[in-house]
Amino acid sequence: MKAIVTGGAGFIGSHVAEVLIERGHQVLVIDDLSGGFRENVPLGAGFLHASVLSDLQAPFEQFRPDAVYHLAAYAAEGLSHHIPLFNYQNNLEGTANVLAAAYHAGAEHFVFTSSIAVYGHPHSAEPFRESDAPAPADPYGIAKFACENHLRAFRDYFGRPNFTIFRPHNVYGERQNISDPFRNVVGIFMNRALRGEPLPVFGDGAQTRSFSYIRAIAECITSAPLTEGARNEIFNIGGDVPTSVGELANTVSSVLGIPPNVQSLPERKEVKHAHACHKKLYRVFGAEAMDMGLREGLERMAAYVQSHPVPPATPCPSPVEILDGLPPSWRQSVIALRDAVAAPAPVLAHQPA
Amino acid sequence: MKAIVTGGAGFIGSHVAEVLIERGHQVLVIDDLSGGFRENVPLGAGFLHASVLSDLQAPFEQFRPDAVYHLAAYAAEGLSHHIPLFNYQNNLEGTANVLAAAYHAGAEHFVFTSSIAVYGHPHSAEPFRESDAPAPADPYGIAKFACENHLRAFRDYFGRPNFTIFRPHNVYGERQNISDPFRNVVGIFMNRALRGEPLPVFGDGAQTRSFSYIRAIAECITSAPLTEGARNEIFNIGGDVPTSVGELANTVSSVLGIPPNVQSLPERKEVKHAHACHKKLYRVFGAEAMDMGLREGLERMAAYVQSHPVPPATPCPSPVEILDGLPPSWRQSVIALRDAVAAPAPVLAHQPA
Repeated sequence: MKAIVTGGAGFIGSHVAEVLIERGHQVLVIDDLSGGFRENVPLGAGFLHASVLSDLQAPFEQFRPDAVYHLAAYAAEGLSHHIPLFNYQNNLEGTANVLAAAYHAGAEHFVFTSSIAVYGHPHSAEPFRESDAPAPADPYGIAKFACENHLRAFRDYFGRPNFTIFRPHNVYGERQNISDPFRNVVGIFMNRALRGEPLPVFGDGAQTRSFSYIRAIAECITSAPLTEGARNEIFNIGGDVPTSVGELANTVSSVLGIPPNVQSLPERKEVKHAHACHKKLYRVFGAEAMDMGLREGLERMAAYVQSHPVPPATPCPSPVEILDGLPPSWRQSVIALRDAVAAPAPVLAHQPA
Repeated sequence: MKAIVTGGAGFIGSHVAEVLIERGHQVLVIDDLSGGFRENVPLGAGFLHASVLSDLQAPFEQFRPDAVYHLAAYAAEGLSHHIPLFNYQNNLEGTANVLAAAYHAGAEHFVFTSSIAVYGHPHSAEPFRESDAPAPADPYGIAKFACENHLRAFRDYFGRPNFTIFRPHNVYGERQNISDPFRNVVGIFMNRALRGEPLPVFGDGAQTRSFSYIRAIAECITSAPLTEGARNEIFNIGGDVPTSVGELANTVSSVLGIPPNVQSLPERKEVKHAHACHKKLYRVFGAEAMDMGLREGLERMAAYVQSHPVPPATPCPSPVEILDGLPPSWRQSVIALRDAVAAPAPVLAHQPA
């Protein structure tokens, strides 16, 4: 199989590319390195430094992928309220652009990582099921849900490509960018702990998530095009064990051998408890529960982090559009990073009219 | 009340602006004239020639609207499959841009025209209700639904502005652009009939819609910010009498005094029957059924059309991104209009990173 992996220099994308290479497939990674790193791209994979918003027709038609794994996104859910235009451009227009290139190049399968964010606030104590009507509560989730709808409408209208949509949640592990101040609580905690700084917790830290170690997730995602029953279907994917953010802070500190030190920040507007049912995934992929114990997963991640240089802080790739309501800690990061060198604008596939 | 009307040089927008003026409000129309006409802007309204994607901060803060009526959109539903990037940029990013400007300028109310397209294919013989879970089946409907979600998420997060969302369908009447080959079956039929050309009908013409004469629609939309019970609510709006496209063709011909002459085109992928329940609208707005007889409405529209010059064909404002599957009649229009002078690119509020 020939596969293109967008975002393949990022966290989940680099693991998917790695599993593809291990399984003998031919891989082209496309990444603009706004959140990922060239070193994350596995040996044996080709690499094209390009934005998902750029004109991708020529490389797609030259490579002629059988499958496209579209994992590139700017996944800062909480920040998306403050950068709505950038969010829709990068995450929705980017997806429509990659899909059109995949279609024109003859791709038969399109694998897309959506997010548990499409569900929004839980309406009951039950974990989210794929059959629940999505009600996204932030621009990040709204864009992901629009992408899901776009994939289905596109396939119904043009007849191709088939798609598999995954809704992962709270994935962590090796190669996660721990230098992005706006996303991924596990990475943020690990970075702070390594610097001897307190771990920032919004509100009382009682909000819960089910954290998901990367490897089993990446294996499932990789298998989608060749899995009977995964065609044109949507799957929740991730761990099943709720953990509070406060408990996560303690475990990260403990794994790094550092005394727990939490900085309480004012509560922010976020979903309090977000969990997903994975029965459909287990049934179709023949997978088993994806939780590795949180401590074991964090130990693996810590071993990686401690043996690799910590990159400089990753700036938000867009100017903040709406400053009101920005949590003070983020405001500081925004100001500190504002003068970071901006990436050159890509040549857009579709120039705004 | 001070009100900004985007798309106020267009069809529905110009009627909303007109009703606002009649009711004594102060009005600023913002329109890029890509589909509308300067002559449509009512006397007494200010006019700013600008795209919804341009930097609107300064004019909004100078005018300081109490309410914003966001009616600007590129509403070619069937064509949206073929111009997905343009569709999301213009209809979703444009809305997010106008909303941010409204918020920063202190606006308290945001009125948005969504579309019946958010519902997608009917799942029963019942008309669509606002409580049905939307399942849009084309990029136009997907963008409109994303806008609805964005308005709600924005208001929940930033506390302002309140919104009222309308989902109109098949509105027709005076000032409708009858020179756009890609949208509005009533306008297309009238244009063709006036030229003595056959009326193009996709498939057997048995697809039904409930056509809605503009005036009562515009009055309801205009009233939203001052209507108890309309705050942060969604309303279907339009007529209740199903009419087949074939019957519409006959009535248009009859009203214009022309023998019926239909050109049968191959069926295209579209929703077969699309009707909406308006009980919620009638209850909250104290409105009555909005159907004027189709013949009477068409006679009014015909009187307008026959006393005004027919403008030259309106080009699609974007290059077609995916030509596959384009109905042959549209393909001809695209090719014929491809060399039309392109509008100058606006200075974008948010330059793609």
